[in-house]
Amino acid sequence: MEKMEKAIERWCNTDFTFEGPTEGNPFLEVRLDATFTNGSREVHVPGFYDGDGRYVIRFMPDILGTWHWNTHSNRQELDSKAGSFSCLPAADGNHGPVRIASSRRFAYEDGTPYHPFGTTCYAWTHQGNAMEERTLRSLVDSPFNKIRMCVFPKHYTFNTDEPEMYPFEGHPDTGWDTTCFNPSFFRHLEHRIADLATRGIEADLILFHPYDRWGFANLGAEADDRYLRYVVARLAAFRNVWWSFANEYDLMKSKTLADWERMAALVADADPWQRLRSIHHCFHSYDHTRPWITHCSIQRTDWYKTSEYVDEWLTRYRKPVVVDECAYEGDIPNNWGNITAEEMVRRFWEGTIRGGYVGHGETYWNPEEVLWWSKGGELHGGSPARIAFLRNIVEADFDETMDYVPDGSASDRNPPYFGRRNRYYLCYFGFNQPAWKMFEMPVGERYEVDVIDTWNMTVENVEGVHEGTFRVDLPARPYMAVRLRRTQP
Amino acid sequence: MEKMEKAIERWCNTDFTFEGPTEGNPFLEVRLDATFTNGSREVHVPGFYDGDGRYVIRFMPDILGTWHWNTHSNRQELDSKAGSFSCLPAADGNHGPVRIASSRRFAYEDGTPYHPFGTTCYAWTHQGNAMEERTLRSLVDSPFNKIRMCVFPKHYTFNTDEPEMYPFEGHPDTGWDTTCFNPSFFRHLEHRIADLATRGIEADLILFHPYDRWGFANLGAEADDRYLRYVVARLAAFRNVWWSFANEYDLMKSKTLADWERMAALVADADPWQRLRSIHHCFHSYDHTRPWITHCSIQRTDWYKTSEYVDEWLTRYRKPVVVDECAYEGDIPNNWGNITAEEMVRRFWEGTIRGGYVGHGETYWNPEEVLWWSKGGELHGGSPARIAFLRNIVEADFDETMDYVPDGSASDRNPPYFGRRNRYYLCYFGFNQPAWKMFEMPVGERYEVDVIDTWNMTVENVEGVHEGTFRVDLPARPYMAVRLRRTQP
Repeated sequence: MEKMEKAIERWCNTDFTFEGPTEGNPFLEVRLDATFTNGSREVHVPGFYDGDGRYVIRFMPDILGTWHWNTHSNRQELDSKAGSFSCLPAADGNHGPVRIASSRRFAYEDGTPYHPFGTTCYAWTHQGNAMEERTLRSLVDSPFNKIRMCVFPKHYTFNTDEPEMYPFEGHPDTGWDTTCFNPSFFRHLEHRIADLATRGIEADLILFHPYDRWGFANLGAEADDRYLRYVVARLAAFRNVWWSFANEYDLMKSKTLADWERMAALVADADPWQRLRSIHHCFHSYDHTRPWITHCSIQRTDWYKTSEYVDEWLTRYRKPVVVDECAYEGDIPNNWGNITAEEMVRRFWEGTIRGGYVGHGETYWNPEEVLWWSKGGELHGGSPARIAFLRNIVEADFDETMDYVPDGSASDRNPPYFGRRNRYYLCYFGFNQPAWKMFEMPVGERYEVDVIDTWNMTVENVEGVHEGTFRVDLPARPYMAVRLRRTQP
Repeated sequence: MEKMEKAIERWCNTDFTFEGPTEGNPFLEVRLDATFTNGSREVHVPGFYDGDGRYVIRFMPDILGTWHWNTHSNRQELDSKAGSFSCLPAADGNHGPVRIASSRRFAYEDGTPYHPFGTTCYAWTHQGNAMEERTLRSLVDSPFNKIRMCVFPKHYTFNTDEPEMYPFEGHPDTGWDTTCFNPSFFRHLEHRIADLATRGIEADLILFHPYDRWGFANLGAEADDRYLRYVVARLAAFRNVWWSFANEYDLMKSKTLADWERMAALVADADPWQRLRSIHHCFHSYDHTRPWITHCSIQRTDWYKTSEYVDEWLTRYRKPVVVDECAYEGDIPNNWGNITAEEMVRRFWEGTIRGGYVGHGETYWNPEEVLWWSKGGELHGGSPARIAFLRNIVEADFDETMDYVPDGSASDRNPPYFGRRNRYYLCYFGFNQPAWKMFEMPVGERYEVDVIDTWNMTVENVEGVHEGTFRVDLPARPYMAVRLRRTQP
């Protein structure tokens, strides 16, 4: 028996809800999933128990037309339910989920390029609604279109508040029943993920992390796997979800490499939409060549350089590179938390010029100890405005034919270039301050030239059209870039 | 027959001059050397022809007491001359030549520590007397106690003037007679080396370099060896001479590794005083483990890091490390010539904290195209004053028991420390800007604490005596350092 339901927008998710058994432990004992078909396309979707006898199949249609579905369950009242619905074209601004577009680029599923300009608020969904709404407002005013955030609450310096909710039944003092999830916790998280989707922000969801006083970092393999299945069933249908298996997996001593591989396989198998997957390290990079890893999520390498290695990582891994943590703009004593706005912006430009992406975070101390990197709230730093400026240039100029342009010399001693030979060059000088720069272009190629002040956020066109060998005067200040754009011919 | 001559100050040089043959080519045909003895000490000193029938033995006595000498020559009128003189104690301020004191430090021969704070004026002795006197005045007002300078003139960007003199007989248009040296050229060079000695500045003399339009970079092995013997005979007696076999040896394509080794062996054999020896590279470091190399003369590694590797090089080579070229403060377009004063000072601090030394150079463009790095003249930059500030701290604080203090962590992610455990710590924050820093010292150890602003050149004592775990507030600006000095107990 099949009923036609309301139409659903492409790449939006909808819930198919069923009443079912409440006795025993439904999380453990009741199995429910569904098959969705649309022509030759068939999608298997795990369902989940949402408490109070409510069972849900959450689905995101990714192609237009009529979808048919039917359920499978070990309980009769949930089995062989069926229906169909129509998938309508996406509304303006809905480009679908982000996918890997090439060995170094992302794109939305509708083909629109997606350039991640991310930030980090690890525990923002654990701060209560007032703070969380402030965070969302700050994000709207920011250049950020991706946020790194933890499912579990976080225990760490400047961040020791007790969360309002926990993912499992139980209490910090008495322990957790990891076989019983707390649907309220997950409904709240989903609400925030949807808030982000509405605002065009990808939720780079960190599934495990070591900064824990509740035991969530050490649940054991069986509970970990249950948790992952539950998370996938509830969250995979959100088009803006990315799976980040860990923040700093190598600090989680209770999990082995085999554990990570098992969990990655589980998610890769269970996730109907194959959301992006990566894993973030502290000291030792995970092997980003592993097939389940869609893109590299990189941590800073040392006190001085990180973004400067992006082109090497792109060459080595042949996957997009996101330096999710290049240190944070701020002034706390922790060695990763006190770079200047200038240095943060420099790291963004370096990584961008080298063909990858860099992530932001902010750690200015304040008496309330609301630090953006952990709790969200307001942004205080100087880098977001400049990151917005950079993002505008990237979105306006970059296309898939462009890349880092190695300078051909044996060593890394020249300012880095991005672009496409004979077409477009973006040359970035970083902390250096040349008073001019000579360019040697083939005769017959004419270029428009802009001098870009990446810190003061100005683009000044250099009068005339330039050809052959020409000189571009610069203000002998740090953080300048020069852009050459070929005009006809 | 022996005559007693006037007394000579220890570590000062004096000339023993003889009239001799002028026919033929005295440079080639007349051999002259002398043996100097003082008790059991015996020194063999090559002589040189100074033109106009004048032959010279130049000698620097390095121990006190009565020295006897006698000559050996293939010409009767120069052979078996003899004499003696008395060596008197060094005057105040004359500490003797610089020697290697340990696997990372230099000292003058009288034991006074010598910390090189060098600069670079490659071609300053080829600029005519007016400019050369300006350079000397600038040096006196500067913190620099070593200068890198070429024997040969230099042909390069911003530096294409014809020199007043050449080292050989001949003319640029007609070529050189490399068997005939130009004594005027060398007398002028000696005069400038003596000017430096008077001012307490070491002359880090570059014997070969590739920036040449006269052919001096490609004389051939026979002429190279003759040149080296002549240079050693004339210059080795100056207590402030160091031999730098090349600037950027690896750009001198006409010389092989075997050539460099042969020339090094020649100098090591001929030089009675065993002046310091090193060799500077462009892309590929020479093998600094070679026994004839007394210390490492390092070129910048890449666009970002160089001084940061000093501790690694010290460990690898077990010889003092001088980053003679870490890039230059300035604004010219060349990739090595446009770092800010802030970045230059940061590189100095980094290298110093890591147990080595960093060299200065300046390349601000000006309409006269007198750039310090090449011609000398005046200093315009912001770094020398801050380098003076650093030098004061080093000379006041550092002793041979102190060194870079590795932080013990697996990666280079913390601010570097210099000092001696449980005694003295100098912690440098570079471009980072923490608002405070926690120190955990063993209970019972009391420390005096200073907050040092390396850019604004202030030292502020933090009131009180500090013990155990304590917090030091900082101004949340880059380029700060903290110094802990143990008080009793």
